[in-house]
Amino acid sequence: MTRPLLTDARRPLTFSIDAMNELGELVPTRIAGEHPLTIYVDNRELVTLMTLGGAPEALTIGYLRNQRLVGSIDEIAAVQVDWEVNAVAVRTRSGQGIAPERVEKRTVTTGCGQGTVFGDLMDELDRVRLTTDRRLDQATLYATLDSVRLHESIYKQAGAVHGCALARAGEILMFVEDVGRHNAVDAIAGQMWLDDLDGDDKLFYTTGRLTSEMVIKAAQMGIPFLVSRSGLTQMGFELACQVGITMIGRAQGKHYLLFTGEERFDR
Amino acid sequence: MTRPLLTDARRPLTFSIDAMNELGELVPTRIAGEHPLTIYVDNRELVTLMTLGGAPEALTIGYLRNQRLVGSIDEIAAVQVDWEVNAVAVRTRSGQGIAPERVEKRTVTTGCGQGTVFGDLMDELDRVRLTTDRRLDQATLYATLDSVRLHESIYKQAGAVHGCALARAGEILMFVEDVGRHNAVDAIAGQMWLDDLDGDDKLFYTTGRLTSEMVIKAAQMGIPFLVSRSGLTQMGFELACQVGITMIGRAQGKHYLLFTGEERFDR
Repeated sequence: MTRPLLTDARRPLTFSIDAMNELGELVPTRIAGEHPLTIYVDNRELVTLMTLGGAPEALTIGYLRNQRLVGSIDEIAAVQVDWEVNAVAVRTRSGQGIAPERVEKRTVTTGCGQGTVFGDLMDELDRVRLTTDRRLDQATLYATLDSVRLHESIYKQAGAVHGCALARAGEILMFVEDVGRHNAVDAIAGQMWLDDLDGDDKLFYTTGRLTSEMVIKAAQMGIPFLVSRSGLTQMGFELACQVGITMIGRAQGKHYLLFTGEERFDR
Repeated sequence: MTRPLLTDARRPLTFSIDAMNELGELVPTRIAGEHPLTIYVDNRELVTLMTLGGAPEALTIGYLRNQRLVGSIDEIAAVQVDWEVNAVAVRTRSGQGIAPERVEKRTVTTGCGQGTVFGDLMDELDRVRLTTDRRLDQATLYATLDSVRLHESIYKQAGAVHGCALARAGEILMFVEDVGRHNAVDAIAGQMWLDDLDGDDKLFYTTGRLTSEMVIKAAQMGIPFLVSRSGLTQMGFELACQVGITMIGRAQGKHYLLFTGEERFDR
């Protein structure tokens, strides 16, 4: 299959405004961009995402992938972003849009935090089998954390974003920041489809918390290692146990907590 | 109107697991609860939220309010949570459920970050008029920040949650923590309906970032002061200017940045 036709429509990622501090001084302050991006599939409006705009094409593809609205990258003929109208036009190869039953299912169960297509994802998780052949050692984990630190450009300038990275053997393959952490994950999922990468030998890093949704998405991408700077929730923990992912939190500098999947980890 | 019939079904908010640190030591670790809660309205499934479970009835009401699925608290006859089945049954006074056109609109434009019923909310914002009669001074801001610090119980124990507070004159009226920051805001919106409180003389505090969605929700609740420990996004800034809210970020201890609405603020 040929790759979909793509625009390359990154937006400027930070802006500057003047704020006033507690001393009454004007402080020039960098802020993260945030733009509505309405997805149309074969001319039919699907959803509006709020995004930093750093990887809008990959985000669109990843959103369709992670919401299970498209079954494979081969179904997508074109993804064309037009910021003049804050819209992205997706053309499918069939020209038939999203199958109604797929949109229907999403309707009933999608909220945000509220963000999970819950029932279906749970069913799917039962079928996920993560590789047991790969291992991660402490030195590689530290190297990954060190590389992440060097990539966080928007967060350092403006805060108010979450970052996600896809890494292999301590090296960062992709790094995406966005105002929504779901968006950052989705953009990586989209880019993995575009680059035809599977998750087997990868580590997924997020600055955000290890909630149920984060574990579900990592597992669906087939990634056996999930690492975060933050903590975890009960359901994130339970799902990680269920799906057998190696999950590490509070990871920063030379500290971390290994929560699940120690059989893949060498200290 | 009589108050809706409510359960009082708070869940335990933290749990303990054993994690392994970088020295190979087992570390007992508190983690935040996270539970699916499926909302049924007049026996029809609407959505599944992932929640800490600290205020499930208020969350349900606030979700219906903020998604514009119910027009007033008077339309709700009962909200009954049953954790045995992770469900909450909402009974409306009409018994007719949510009007189909309201669910329909949500379908097209809801995502998560991806979380905004975008077009409609924007239209509504044009009609919001925030009071210009109220003022906030620096001492009251500091007193509010100090009170918030004392309330953050789950965050201190387990991290992985966002907190929101409703305050008046430096005093915290409500404080809600949840795994999703949309949920924490929604729970406060729900409790405000239950207690018949309007937003005029209130301050809304969030640990989360000042994104477009946060500004929209505060404005819709009629609250003129929005304060956060975190930074802001471009669209949060633009909407705050448009709606004329007084917005303060990076607020912690005796530091803050005033971003918009300085006419209501006395340093």
